[in-house]
Order: sequence, then structure tokens, then C-alpha cells
Amino acid sequence: MYTPPGALSAEAAEIVTIGDELNRGEIVDTNSSWIAERLTAIGLHVRWRSSTTDDVVDMEAALRQAAGRARVVVCSGGLGPTDDDRTVDVMAAILGVAAGVDEGHQARMVARFAERSFLGSPPKDGGAAGPVSMTPNNLRQVRVPSGAEVLPNRAGLAPGFRVALRDSALFFVPGVPREMKRIFEEEIAPRLRALCGDGRATAKRTWRVAGMGESHVDHQLRGLLDGIAGATLHFRIAYPENLVTVVVRRPAREEAEAVITALDSAVRARLGGAVYGIDDETLATVIGRRLRARGETVATAESCTGGLCGDLLTDVPGSSDYFLGGVIAYANPQKESLLGVRRETLERHGAVSEACVREMAEGVRRTVGATFGVAISGIAGPGGGSAEKPVGLVHFAVAGPSGIEARKLVWPSREGDPDGRRMVKQLAAFAALNLLEKLLAPPGSDRVSSTPREEGPRR
Amino acid sequence: MYTPPGALSAEAAEIVTIGDELNRGEIVDTNSSWIAERLTAIGLHVRWRSSTTDDVVDMEAALRQAAGRARVVVCSGGLGPTDDDRTVDVMAAILGVAAGVDEGHQARMVARFAERSFLGSPPKDGGAAGPVSMTPNNLRQVRVPSGAEVLPNRAGLAPGFRVALRDSALFFVPGVPREMKRIFEEEIAPRLRALCGDGRATAKRTWRVAGMGESHVDHQLRGLLDGIAGATLHFRIAYPENLVTVVVRRPAREEAEAVITALDSAVRARLGGAVYGIDDETLATVIGRRLRARGETVATAESCTGGLCGDLLTDVPGSSDYFLGGVIAYANPQKESLLGVRRETLERHGAVSEACVREMAEGVRRTVGATFGVAISGIAGPGGGSAEKPVGLVHFAVAGPSGIEARKLVWPSREGDPDGRRMVKQLAAFAALNLLEKLLAPPGSDRVSSTPREEGPRR
Repeated sequence: MYTPPGALSAEAAEIVTIGDELNRGEIVDTNSSWIAERLTAIGLHVRWRSSTTDDVVDMEAALRQAAGRARVVVCSGGLGPTDDDRTVDVMAAILGVAAGVDEGHQARMVARFAERSFLGSPPKDGGAAGPVSMTPNNLRQVRVPSGAEVLPNRAGLAPGFRVALRDSALFFVPGVPREMKRIFEEEIAPRLRALCGDGRATAKRTWRVAGMGESHVDHQLRGLLDGIAGATLHFRIAYPENLVTVVVRRPAREEAEAVITALDSAVRARLGGAVYGIDDETLATVIGRRLRARGETVATAESCTGGLCGDLLTDVPGSSDYFLGGVIAYANPQKESLLGVRRETLERHGAVSEACVREMAEGVRRTVGATFGVAISGIAGPGGGSAEKPVGLVHFAVAGPSGIEARKLVWPSREGDPDGRRMVKQLAAFAALNLLEKLLAPPGSDRVSSTPREEGPRR
Repeated sequence: MYTPPGALSAEAAEIVTIGDELNRGEIVDTNSSWIAERLTAIGLHVRWRSSTTDDVVDMEAALRQAAGRARVVVCSGGLGPTDDDRTVDVMAAILGVAAGVDEGHQARMVARFAERSFLGSPPKDGGAAGPVSMTPNNLRQVRVPSGAEVLPNRAGLAPGFRVALRDSALFFVPGVPREMKRIFEEEIAPRLRALCGDGRATAKRTWRVAGMGESHVDHQLRGLLDGIAGATLHFRIAYPENLVTVVVRRPAREEAEAVITALDSAVRARLGGAVYGIDDETLATVIGRRLRARGETVATAESCTGGLCGDLLTDVPGSSDYFLGGVIAYANPQKESLLGVRRETLERHGAVSEACVREMAEGVRRTVGATFGVAISGIAGPGGGSAEKPVGLVHFAVAGPSGIEARKLVWPSREGDPDGRRMVKQLAAFAALNLLEKLLAPPGSDRVSSTPREEGPRR
């Protein structure tokens, strides 16, 4: 197998994605990137990513080529119920076996159809909606090539599976990202770690960084891994955050994890208060943990974000313990009537102003009766900007028992960028939550000392 | 050249993207999707997308393979100034020619370096930033294989170029998306239209389907394209929606478009009221267009969705014309205090009930002063469910001038699914907007006649 220069011998891997819609450019092939990141973290060397349409000739050629050159192949797509989902048949043909129904997944599918009513099927005789009958095609998606190892899909109906061809292990997952990720994490990752178990183990940690651009993060971390064998540093933008990942490969897992643990304080020291969490933590989960521990609550007053801030907070299970509710005051009259912002403030300073978000934050805190009030008002664009208040200008504030903290940010407008409006909304909601998180951080922690007066874009 | 089954012969194309960072999954390969969409629109058939690292052996193999099977190859990446930018050298080696500096781009680069200060180089002695000297590597990026046709880069320093190998035309562009797109639009697209000018064109339409599972959509559309030459049917889940796409290839664009237009009514008839829009339309844009045309407004009252419904509505530029605001009433006391839901209703029916969402919808309509009030209350999980009111139960309602319409849906809980909570929120927000859209549909349209009493999941 191929050994990349300068690395511990890593097994070569290939990712194959299947789908007409990918090759017509209708959707971006995020599966391929996600799988690449995971395979790299496990210690594999992703040398090829290939993609074909649903055409069986091209699929077969791609899978044969992958099996001929890569030790590990992960193939995503073409496992659904429709006639253009052909991955099972193609792989079965390559192996010279039949395709057969997996009884476990069939039973789950039948149970699912029986238990639930289906959107669009009107109730009979005015009663409750009845069970929906399966179409003949539904059975297609619970098949695997005979003899394949079934990889249970706990997020959907179509099973993943694993087969062997030549010296390669081939793993197949549905193209639906949620299902693909679940099967990969639960079924494929452990098998790959065992497969690549050549006496090396991998430990990994991701530090989540808010409020610092990628090039600055890069600069601050320069030399971090000097003299540390088997360690690699990776950056990824998960807009509007930056993620810093260190992967350490050592003969024993404990040893690899000890290296990561030792690095933790170094990373935090170099990045100051910009690290708010690690691995799968989000700003909303960190905020929730802190509010729950303090027995405190929060409410939101949103203008340009339109509810996104509340949406992020309520993605956390159990958030009803500390998130009481909020107000979306999109139009100015609603800022007055629902939040008590003074007309004078709106007339003198405008809705996008420090004065306005201060009154919004205090207003929602008072109206809802929460410990903290978070307020956001900005110009998401593409219209509505001016020389004085350009598109991308956002004011935000947090009102609490000790007073009101206000900040602003300016996201540089990018003319004609169709994603600009969404990006301003995301940055604004994220910055406001970031400010709240800083105010909730335990005394003496890094987070408290770092409250820059003005926040800028994070790229 | 390859002829896809059932289609007029379209030239086969391949996209090759180069870069270690792509294959480690650090960035998503959006270039590949963008180029695929453009090639498809021009009338090419993108059969393969391939990606390798910066390794010269793998790059050479990928380019040779692409030239051996595709009539048109577009390759992105590896044209920069650093040592791991090797595309020019690899392609020159394949052709058996040297790599030479393109004098036009060299002159532009020299001029650019002379005229501008360079990021990160502080001015000397406090004066204006001086010219920055080029490093030896800068010249790398203005080279092309000798004899190649140079494709001017008006957005950056590295030229694109075109070469021929076997029967293939190979086009090379830098990996920086802005530069890649500029060269493609200005230089490559016109050449491809000339190259493929054999009298074929592609027309495409996507119908967006709400409230019908993929297998039922498939079932309803069976036989739709029987007897229509050059037409293909494709499905895609964009949770919680389903997208149906028809692609038609014909000698003339007008002819292809006429086929699509003729299919429109057939698709809508087969799918009843489930089609709410086409192509890039979203529920929020359709709602916005209708509200604006009617001079009416909307407000939201959200419980389990936490603000997502407002967030979706405000992703549309100009939504402040008709979205006034809303209330996130996450806790019960806020349902009373902010929306005027009666305590008796909450005590007797609970917050997740038809009675409650009716009062929420009417309450927010009255409080905010909007034409329509949209209300949602449900159990997003993973906790909080009961036998009578399971996780996934959502009530929603729209209050308007003609009264209140209420619905409910049940999304089957999937134990341990980390995305379950998010999916319930998405389905709930989407279903509520879907109901509003139906109520806003012009009289006599398909949409009005289809208001099923109970809504269920869409898969």
C-alpha cells in the first residue's frame, strides 16, 4: 500500500459518491468532504475522491477502480427506494451475487409505516389518518448484496453494508447526510479503527474558536506542535466559527490522549478567550450549561436575525429549563409596542443603534421576566444600507442583573453575494450568543478577561 | 463518445479538482459543483468528477484518465505560487513540452506588485507602504505548458489555459473560486458553446414538493416521461421537502423548453396540491410574493420551533415588507403574558393542543397587528413526551381574516437520534408555512383544494 512521504504509513482510501444531482451541480457534495475529514482523522490517507452519475456502467467502473487502488473505499448514495437507486445491484453484480432483503431493516420499515400517519393522506370518513401502505419500491431500499455485512441505519430505512473486493474493504452508506453520518460514526469508524489497527491509536480534539479569524488563529498557533511526533494540526471554517483540530497518532491510545491533554492549556493560552468549547459543544450548549448551573434564565429580542438566535438556543435538549421565550421585533412599531423601545430613540438613533439594542435587551428582560435579555438589530441586506450604516452593520446587547453590555460588528458587504444576507444573520446571532457566554463564564476563567469592545468578522 | 440511454447524444465531460485540503475534508469542493452546474447548462453530460491530492503521480493518472474518457475536461487547482502547486508541470510532462512563462500575465503581475502595498508588510519609517519585491516562487504562477492557449485571468494573477490531448479539450483554472468563475464565464463557456455547437440544448425544471414522501412522489409520477425522447426524471430529498427534476435534451433550446412547459401541468396534476413552487423558490419566497401582491402581513407565535419559522421567513430579502415580527413563547407563562392564551386553555388542554395554537395564532395576529398569525406548539424531544402526547406531536394554526385553520402532525420519534429534535423543529416550521402558503394561494389553484386535515412526516 501507498505510504505518503513524511507520514506514518497510512492506508490509502477512496471516497466514491453517486448521484446524477451531484454531477449536474444541483447539490454540493458535502458528504465527500465530511467523509474525507473523518477518514483523515482516523489516520487514513484519502488519495482519491470520485463521483459518477446513477449510470450503472460508470458506477461499476468507479467501484472497480477504487477497489483496485485503495485499501478502504467509502461509497455514498444510490441506496434509496427509487428506480435510479442502483448501488446495491451494481455492487452485487460486481461480486457475482444476488441482492437480498435484510430482514431486520424490512421489519423496521414495516413497523414504521404501520405506526405513523402520512402527510398528504387525508383521513377516511373524517376519522384519524390511517396507516399508509408501502409502495412496491419501498422494499428496494432494504436490500444488500447477499453475504454483505449489514451496517444498521438507526437514522433511516436503508441499511449500510460492507463487502470485500480484492484487498479492499468497501463500505456503503445512503446519500442522505444525516443517515450517512450516523452509520459512519456508529458502524464504520470503529471497523476502520480496527482495520487500521497496526499498533497505532489516534486521539483527536477540536477547539472551537469564536471571534478570531482563521489567519490569526493560524498565526497564534505557529510552532504549537514543534517537537511533538505524530501530531498534525488542521483548521476548518465552520462559519461563523473556526475549528482547530489536533490529531495525535501514537502506539497506545493513553499516550495519544496524554499528548492532547497536555496541549489543551497551550492552545487555550495562545488563543486567549477565543476558545469557548471543544469537540461537539456549541455556544448554545455552553450557555445552557452555565445558565442551568446558576439557576438563571434568558430571553431574546431579535430584529435582523428574525428568530435565529432563539432557534439556536432551542436546538439544545432541555433548553426550556432556562430559555423562557422572546420577541421578534422586525418592524419598528413592534419594537415600541412589544419591547417598549422609546419612539424618541428610534427617531434619533434609528433601529440599528446601540441605544436601540440597549432598550430592546432591557425591554425583553423585563417583559419576559428573565435574568438576561439578548438583543440584536442590524442590516442584513442586500438592501437598506447607507454610507453611515452599511449592510453588515449589527448592534447587539445583553442586559443582566449587573447592567447592559453592548457591542457592534460590521460584516463587510460583498456585492452580489447571494449568501450575504444569511451570513450577516448567522454572524449576528453568533456574536450575541458569544457575548452572553462571556458574561456567564466563571470568574477567573479566560473568557471573562476577553471582552473586546468591538467585534469583527471572523474569516 | 458516450450516449446516455434515452437521451440525445451529449458530449461527456469530466471535472478534476486538485488539492490536499480537499481530500482531507478541510474545505468543501464547491468548485466541482459549480462547474458541474455550468457544464450541464451548456449541454454537456458530466459523467465524472475526480479529485486527487497534490501528488504528481496521482494528478497525472487522473488527467490521463479524464482525457481518455471525456470529450471535455475542466481541471481546477494547483496553479498557485507555492511548491505544492504542480498542475502546470504535470500537464506539460504529459504533453512532453516545457512549461513557459506567459509574458502577458507576467507583465500584469509585475505591474500589480509595483503599484500596491502588500498585506502584512508594514510601511517603512512610518511612510506609505512601499512596493513589495516578488519572491522567486511568484513567477511559478504565470507559467503555462508551451503551446497552450492562454485563458486570461482578469480576477487574479495565474492564467488559465487550454490544451488538447487525444480527442479531448482540457481547460485549466486556478482553485480560487472567484478567479475560477471569472475565467470560466469569460473564456471557457464561449469556447464550449462553440465546441458543442451541434444543435443540442438542455432545459431543466425542478418542482418543489411539500407534504408527500419520496416513494409516493415516485409512484405518482410513474410513466410521466413515457414516449418523451431525451427526457430524464430525478428525485432528491431536501428535508423536509422533496424535489422532482426533469431534464430534457433536444436539438434546440426552444424545443427542450417546450417539452418542460408541456410537462408542468402533468406534474402538478399528478402531485395535486403538493407542488408549491419550482426551481429556486422556497416556501418563504412564495409566501412573500403572495403577501406582497395582496398587501398583507404576517406575524409568528412559536413555541417548540423557538424562532425557526421567523428565521425562515426573514431569509428572504425584503421580507420586512410583510413580516412584522413575532413572539417566541417557549414557557407557558409567556404564552399567557405575551400572547393572551387563557390559563384555562393551558390547564385543560395543555400547551401542545389545538386549542392553544388557535389562541396563540389569534393572539399574535392581534398583538402584532398583522393580517395573518402563524402559531406552532409541539414536543420536539427528546424528553417531554407521553403516551397521549408523544415526542414529535406538533399542533399548528394560521389565523386570518376568515378565521383560524388548525392542523397537527406526528413525526415518529426515533430514539437516540441526535438530530431528532432539529428535525421535529424543521418539519413543524415547514408545515406551518405550508399551511399559510395554501391559504394564500390564488382561488382556483391546485393549492387551495388540498388541505389535508392531518399532516405527517414526509419521507
